[in-house]
Amino acid sequence: MANSPKTRRLPERRLPVPATASAELQKACAQPLDAAIEIIEREPQDLDDWRKTLALYDQASRLRLEKLRQRFPVQSRAETINGVTVYRLTPSRIAPENPARSLVHFHGGGFALAGGELGTGEGILAAYHGQIEVFSVDYRQCPDHPYPAPLEDALAVWQALAEEFAPQNLGLIGASAGGNLMLALVFKLRELGLPLPAALACCSPWADLLAQGDTINTLQYVDSAAISYTGLIAGMAKLYGGAGDWRDPLISPVYGDFTGFPPTLLISGARDLFLSDTVRVHRQLRRRGAWADLHVFEGLSHAEHLYLFDSPESEEIFGEIRRFFDQFLAQ
Amino acid sequence: MANSPKTRRLPERRLPVPATASAELQKACAQPLDAAIEIIEREPQDLDDWRKTLALYDQASRLRLEKLRQRFPVQSRAETINGVTVYRLTPSRIAPENPARSLVHFHGGGFALAGGELGTGEGILAAYHGQIEVFSVDYRQCPDHPYPAPLEDALAVWQALAEEFAPQNLGLIGASAGGNLMLALVFKLRELGLPLPAALACCSPWADLLAQGDTINTLQYVDSAAISYTGLIAGMAKLYGGAGDWRDPLISPVYGDFTGFPPTLLISGARDLFLSDTVRVHRQLRRRGAWADLHVFEGLSHAEHLYLFDSPESEEIFGEIRRFFDQFLAQ
Repeated sequence: MANSPKTRRLPERRLPVPATASAELQKACAQPLDAAIEIIEREPQDLDDWRKTLALYDQASRLRLEKLRQRFPVQSRAETINGVTVYRLTPSRIAPENPARSLVHFHGGGFALAGGELGTGEGILAAYHGQIEVFSVDYRQCPDHPYPAPLEDALAVWQALAEEFAPQNLGLIGASAGGNLMLALVFKLRELGLPLPAALACCSPWADLLAQGDTINTLQYVDSAAISYTGLIAGMAKLYGGAGDWRDPLISPVYGDFTGFPPTLLISGARDLFLSDTVRVHRQLRRRGAWADLHVFEGLSHAEHLYLFDSPESEEIFGEIRRFFDQFLAQ
Repeated sequence: MANSPKTRRLPERRLPVPATASAELQKACAQPLDAAIEIIEREPQDLDDWRKTLALYDQASRLRLEKLRQRFPVQSRAETINGVTVYRLTPSRIAPENPARSLVHFHGGGFALAGGELGTGEGILAAYHGQIEVFSVDYRQCPDHPYPAPLEDALAVWQALAEEFAPQNLGLIGASAGGNLMLALVFKLRELGLPLPAALACCSPWADLLAQGDTINTLQYVDSAAISYTGLIAGMAKLYGGAGDWRDPLISPVYGDFTGFPPTLLISGARDLFLSDTVRVHRQLRRRGAWADLHVFEGLSHAEHLYLFDSPESEEIFGEIRRFFDQFLAQ
């Protein structure tokens, strides 16, 4: 595609730090990316290489999670639900409207990263800011467990929770691969005639494994977090989708029929490599008459509010998420 | 700013045509921009140069308007309202819910282009798709009439129409400079204690003459329509803002206090140089508790749905606009 005659040449440019972003986000935008580009654009060569590479990324996540947990104290207990490990995240205070409500969280990480407790960061933030209990699902991941294993685990946990609680009191939340998973789960539930969650907060979903979104090109190297949809990310798509049909909505939800979807909040950033995935899902929802609300944050890269968890942008996003669930979850 | 040490280097790249856009939009994305860049990046040198340059752009608009009018037949009659020329645009069919409703339209064109009937294109599309009467305001423009003349004309027309019709039956619509003008008008009405319109459909507003938005940099040369916020556009900002305080919300609405704003629909594209202006206005509205709904279209450049008026993207946008006004205008 890059060598197609129908391509526009973009000259070399310098990108200033956005004056319109918070101090925290400006700092992230000022980071040089050269070293990170080299790492992320390399696709691991074999299984051993994959394991080492993933471990390296997870090491960075571990340091981040420790800081996040210090800043946002939320109790975390591992439970096993229908054979799947789930972290039950309980904030010190549950809001008066939330004792009968819960969120089910699917973490991001390209279906390969942030397994175990490492995946709980977004769930902790949602529990803390929303004053609500969160079940963070530690679904099986690649390279050992490609599609459909993660979706099977998501389904297993949902079925158990939907029996224990009223589905109209349950919302789903997730980012990136977690956004993919929550959309695929709703397709699966609809197919099986099972009860749907009351509402979805879907942050920058990785909704198209075929990588057709325009911002994957327009925002390459502009995005500070996902940076470039090449080596690592393209490799994770191969791990997850394998020899399956990547246009199957259970693998690439953007190609699905969104009829009957629950109210959906969509969050992205104007520097997000997955902005196109996000707005394409938004359009699909609107075309099918679903309630859908899109928020795009100035200067923000892919799921960057989860890294910059102490930024005003992150606080504002979790404020929107809280208001959204309060509007659509039964009590 | 471009030479600040805190800048990220973007290497030369080639930008593929987005497979996710309509055939019409793909064609626009495939156009080489080199010639257009040269023209748009040149700032006219004196008043005579400005007049010639503006006349050249208006010539292209004239051809486009003729095609648009053939495709979307809507009756257009010039009237004078409070001393200002207004085009009354009446579609052949008014929807059953719309006989008592009207829209007031403020055209785009950087406060210098598309004066006279040339500015009616968006109004015609809104009248046709929405089956509703539209008053398109031919406000005075630069270089002869900088701020506050355009806003004074907007106010004069609004006051007359709000007396003739019930304000709760009136909505505002506009793009780019027209988006700026409609937001500034609401600030002005609030300041004067005058009745507000019931709802605003604001497409890719030029909300910040200080050009602080991040996408002005990230999407330079990616946007097929506005292309680059340099020569021509930067020059039009100087014409309009002059020696005034550009941070005044009546000149740069994004810096205003959006308390008490009517429900506002915001439309932009993922290639829009003014995506940042749009999402920043969206955030300002949300922070003040206003009802606001953001739509970002895949692959779409600045107000490009008005150029590609026969595209599915344009039809979808005017469908959203129609549903929006139907929700918020009284009958």
